[in-house]
Amino acid sequence: MTYDLFYWPGIQGRGEFVRLVLEDAGAEYVDVARQPGGMKQLQAALAEGLGGVVPFAPPFLRAGDVVISQTVAICSFVGERHGLAPSDPGGRAAAIAVALTIADLVSEAHDTHHPIRVDQAYETQKAAALERAKGFRELRIPKFTAYLERNLERNGAVLVGSEISYVDLAAFQVVEGLTYAFPRAMQAIHPKIPKLLALRDRVAARPRLAAYLASDRRLPFNEKGIFRRYPELDG
Amino acid sequence: MTYDLFYWPGIQGRGEFVRLVLEDAGAEYVDVARQPGGMKQLQAALAEGLGGVVPFAPPFLRAGDVVISQTVAICSFVGERHGLAPSDPGGRAAAIAVALTIADLVSEAHDTHHPIRVDQAYETQKAAALERAKGFRELRIPKFTAYLERNLERNGAVLVGSEISYVDLAAFQVVEGLTYAFPRAMQAIHPKIPKLLALRDRVAARPRLAAYLASDRRLPFNEKGIFRRYPELDG
Repeated sequence: MTYDLFYWPGIQGRGEFVRLVLEDAGAEYVDVARQPGGMKQLQAALAEGLGGVVPFAPPFLRAGDVVISQTVAICSFVGERHGLAPSDPGGRAAAIAVALTIADLVSEAHDTHHPIRVDQAYETQKAAALERAKGFRELRIPKFTAYLERNLERNGAVLVGSEISYVDLAAFQVVEGLTYAFPRAMQAIHPKIPKLLALRDRVAARPRLAAYLASDRRLPFNEKGIFRRYPELDG
Repeated sequence: MTYDLFYWPGIQGRGEFVRLVLEDAGAEYVDVARQPGGMKQLQAALAEGLGGVVPFAPPFLRAGDVVISQTVAICSFVGERHGLAPSDPGGRAAAIAVALTIADLVSEAHDTHHPIRVDQAYETQKAAALERAKGFRELRIPKFTAYLERNLERNGAVLVGSEISYVDLAAFQVVEGLTYAFPRAMQAIHPKIPKLLALRDRVAARPRLAAYLASDRRLPFNEKGIFRRYPELDG
């Protein structure tokens, strides 16, 4: 079965968490909005749905008759179908919990450049962004990454279960994104997160992902996505 | 089996979404931190975990050998075990997607009074809060509630599937919370959300929930929780 992924073209954004799972699984998928005429399809799906629940926002995924929205819901669904998730109920619940916590970190990274209004440009809310980013660097990045490091210390080489799962792919992506957006803040905590950095490297070296990351399917980070490099926000 | 719910005492907060599912299911549970000595247990569990993943934050739930954190993960787990969730894969995925979207709305409601730093009081970030709340009232409440109303129009009396699920209980709670925190803004959109308000009333009238809501187990909303009534934020 070929999946249809609906996400904004031109940015990694939250869609990238889904792309990583699809790529690592070796699944066939169409990145709909990056095809000719695809943005019209995405807009139509947002307006009218694809059957079932009308999504609030991209990303959403069509998997045969099933349409799934919300990044973590999509990643867990695809991960469970392709051996990239624990198979026992406790492990599945743990995976979703860690993935949702990473998603919270992603949302907070977004809010550093949009602390006031999502519908207005960064430049209109720069003063608040400077303050919010300071708290993010000083409190939140350390707290979230310590949570991931701690659970790696307890669980072993991967975050949940005994094999690489979609959760580890999400951890890779959030470390990459934070390193792009906040290189100085991330450099400063490197000594505290050796296991998380090792996991990031191990994920990046997986053959299918390494091929993906080197391909033009992997968009570069940029200042329209969630992780944006505004040096003034990096302290 | 008796569940152990770990959440901050004294506020509804995110824990309330779990309480509603447990109460409506008629499940036996201990609200740990509201028992004598319970806060010590909660703090110890946050520091050391309860086996498996160490939670990032409350709420988390012990269900026998399984420990689950993240509100939506807990609600879907309990809901699926007690007939308060769709039973088919597509329905389960749709339920999680809508529940996660409601959770996003809850997070945005929180950020109206804490737009800059979670570790500092509202009063220190009031100017930014006034701006953020304005955007929340003008853009975000209308967008999220329209999403819920739209899906009720398409699906029928409940948000997903054909029976009341944990998602509907969450919709009840977010409408109640927003009505507490933003009574004027909510009043203004009443004409646009008749189905959502009808769902709210239907959930509140369910016998077990009606008994719960009238009991002293249901804490009142207050200005330490997520939904806070600061009249200046209501325009």
